Order: sequence, then structure tokens, then C-alpha cells
Amino acid sequence: MLYELYYWPTIQGRGEFVRLALEECGAKYVDVARKSGKKGGVPAMMTLLGGKRIKCPPFAPPFLKAGKLVIGQTANILLFLGARHGLAPRNEAGRLWTHALQLTIVDFVVEVHDTHHPIASGLYYEDQRREAKLRTTDFLKNRAPKYLGYFERVLGQSGGAWLVGGRLTYADLSLFQIVEGLRYAFPKAMKRMERKLPRVVALHDRVAKRPRIAAYLASERRIAFNEQGIFRQYEELDG
Amino acid sequence: MLYELYYWPTIQGRGEFVRLALEECGAKYVDVARKSGKKGGVPAMMTLLGGKRIKCPPFAPPFLKAGKLVIGQTANILLFLGARHGLAPRNEAGRLWTHALQLTIVDFVVEVHDTHHPIASGLYYEDQRREAKLRTTDFLKNRAPKYLGYFERVLGQSGGAWLVGGRLTYADLSLFQIVEGLRYAFPKAMKRMERKLPRVVALHDRVAKRPRIAAYLASERRIAFNEQGIFRQYEELDG
Repeated sequence: MLYELYYWPTIQGRGEFVRLALEECGAKYVDVARKSGKKGGVPAMMTLLGGKRIKCPPFAPPFLKAGKLVIGQTANILLFLGARHGLAPRNEAGRLWTHALQLTIVDFVVEVHDTHHPIASGLYYEDQRREAKLRTTDFLKNRAPKYLGYFERVLGQSGGAWLVGGRLTYADLSLFQIVEGLRYAFPKAMKRMERKLPRVVALHDRVAKRPRIAAYLASERRIAFNEQGIFRQYEELDG
Repeated sequence: MLYELYYWPTIQGRGEFVRLALEECGAKYVDVARKSGKKGGVPAMMTLLGGKRIKCPPFAPPFLKAGKLVIGQTANILLFLGARHGLAPRNEAGRLWTHALQLTIVDFVVEVHDTHHPIASGLYYEDQRREAKLRTTDFLKNRAPKYLGYFERVLGQSGGAWLVGGRLTYADLSLFQIVEGLRYAFPKAMKRMERKLPRVVALHDRVAKRPRIAAYLASERRIAFNEQGIFRQYEELDG
């Protein structure tokens, strides 16, 4: 099946968690908003988003079109892809556990975003710099260590090299992206935090070396981090 | 099966979305942290949360124990209960659509929480009042209308009385709770917003009249809203 991924064309953002899963399982997909031509670009995405002819309109990007299915919400897309492509256990317990981990990553991502946008996502960073500094101070002192420490603990108890045990899941790919993003956004703070996260760092490195992921990261399909995405580098915030 | 729900004992919070689902399907459950005795109270919850003997430790409450399963994350618990108790369609498309709606509600709930805690969840409201006012102004002007307008639109296109069509799902119960909470937290602003939300308000009323929900709301099992939960009433924020 040829999947259609719909996401903003110039950022990694939440779409990146889906891209990593699609790349790892070698799925064929079109990154629709990055395509030119009549059926591509942001307009093609907005048509589906606002579409009154669609019975299940997604609230926001990313969303995935798989045949007739239009699937919204990052973690939901991964739940779907995980079951189809062996990126999650088949049994109920394993499936729910993987999804719980992913939903915790989703929560973490919201908090990362809000470090630079604590007041309003519709305002510029420059209009909430003071508040961003306050929020980021708490994030780096309390929230990031809490989340990352949790994943470190899960890895210590999993009984395998991956979060859910002996086999890679989409949650591992997403945790890789978290490490990548935090290293970009908060290089100094992350360097300090990583000292207490040997298992998380090792997982990151293992993901980066997987042949399909390594090929993807080296390709033009991987958009560079920038200051329009979730993970943004503002030196003044890197406490 | 006797379920064990683990959540903070004095607030509705995120646990309430699970309680509503358990009540609607007539499930037997113990609200563990609200019980006294050796096996109850917050300590019983913390034992499982921090437990090194648990293979799948939840990140935070609420979590549900179902036999040997320990399921974390509100939306994940509802995914599980929905499949077991007919609170979601059985087919893949309907299951994913219901879950996408729930995950959008989860996102909304984070934004509700952050109206009174935009800087740090570990600080008191009183320490971030100025920022709370700024964030709430944006929330009431932009974010709440966007989310609520989305659900109004989904109801208009669903082809039935409920979000997913002709049958009630857990997402309807959660949307009911959103309306209840917003009416408590922002009575003036919500009154204005509801003028444009006839379908959402009608859904709220239909849920409130369901026999098991009505009995639950009238019982002592329903904790009253208060200023430790997600939905808090601070008059100065109700723009």
C-alpha cells in the first residue's frame, strides 16, 4: 500500500515520529505537503483538514491516509502502523504497553513545545520570551529529568535492549527522536542530563545505526531541525 | 472482572474520564486510592507507580489494573475499556476514529490545565497568576473555540446523535466531562461559547440523562469540582 502522510513541509515536528516509523518498516509513502504539483503542497493538506466531505476529519496534522482510512493523531497513526508492520507486539498486553509509552512521549513533546510557547502557540516566541525562560527553567530542572529518568528506568527493567523488551517498537524510534531533539534544543543541559541516562543514550545510538534509519537520516527526506518546529534552539533558554 | 482504578482520591482530574466509562458500562471497580485500610489509599497507588517489581510501570495516574494488566495513560485505558465493553466500534476504522477523537480531547485537557499552570505544574497558581491570565485570555479567545468548534463540526457530520455516529462511545462521555468542566471553570465565557455549540450541548445533556451516568453523578462516587483538579474556578480568569 502507498501511504500518504500529511504534515507541514518545512519542519520535523510531530510528523517526524510518523516518518521514522514509515522509514524503519520500509513502507512506501508520499509526504504530500512536500510534493509540488496539483496533488501536493500545503493546499492539498488543508483540503483534507477542513473538508466537509470527509467523515472523520482530523483536528490537526499529522494525519495518514491509508486507502480509505484517514487517521489523525500521531500516537494513533503509530498504533495503526505498529500493528500492520510489526513495530509493536501482537498481544494485547504488549500492544497497550507500547502505546502507553508512546502517549507518555506525546505528553513530553507538548511540554517541549511549551518551553518556547508557554503563553500562546499563536504568538511569536519573541512575545513570550520572559515566560519561556521561566517555563524552560522548570522544564530542565524538573520535567525533562522526570520523563527521561522514567524511560531510563523502563529500559533497565525491560529485560531486553528496547523499551518493550527484545524487539524494537515505534516507541523506541520516538525516544530516539526525543534525544535528537533535546540535543539540538538544549545542547548544554542535555549533555549534563545524559550522564544519568546511559540506557537512553545507548538506545538512541542503536536506532541511529539501523540501516533504514541511517539511510533516512543521511537523505534529503530528513528535514533539518529549525526554529519553526517543536525542538528549537534558543541559546538563552539552554540553562 | 473487578477492575482497580488508581487515581488521586480528592479530584476528578484525568481519572474522571475513566470513571465515566466504567460507570456507563456498569463495570465493577474499586477506586483504590479512595479506599481506607491496608490495601487502599494513596500509598497503595504509589507502591505501584514507583514499583521496581512491575514490568510495565505507569508514568503517572490514572492507571487501571485489569487482572495482571496494568494499563497507563487515560486514552489507552479507554481504548482498552472501549473494546471490552462496547464503548467503541469493533471495526478498525471506527476504533481508530474514536481514539483520534479521544486523543484530541486529551490535548484539550492539557491546555485547560495550563490555563492555571502555564509556567510550572510544581508551583502554586498564586506564583503564576500573571502568566495564567495571559494564557487563559488566549485559551478562551482561540484555543477553546477551536477545539469545541471542531467537535461541533464532527457532530454535524457524524450522521447520528453521537460523535462516531449512531452509538455512544467513550469519546462522548469525555466530551460531556469537558463541557461540565468548562462550565465550572469559566461559567461566563462558556455561556457565550455555548451559543455556537448546539450539538455539543445537546450531547452533554443526552449523556447526563443516561441512567447509569445520572445515578453516578448523584452519588458520592462523583467528587465535586475543586481547585486542585484540572478544571479550576478562578473568577479573575473567566474573561
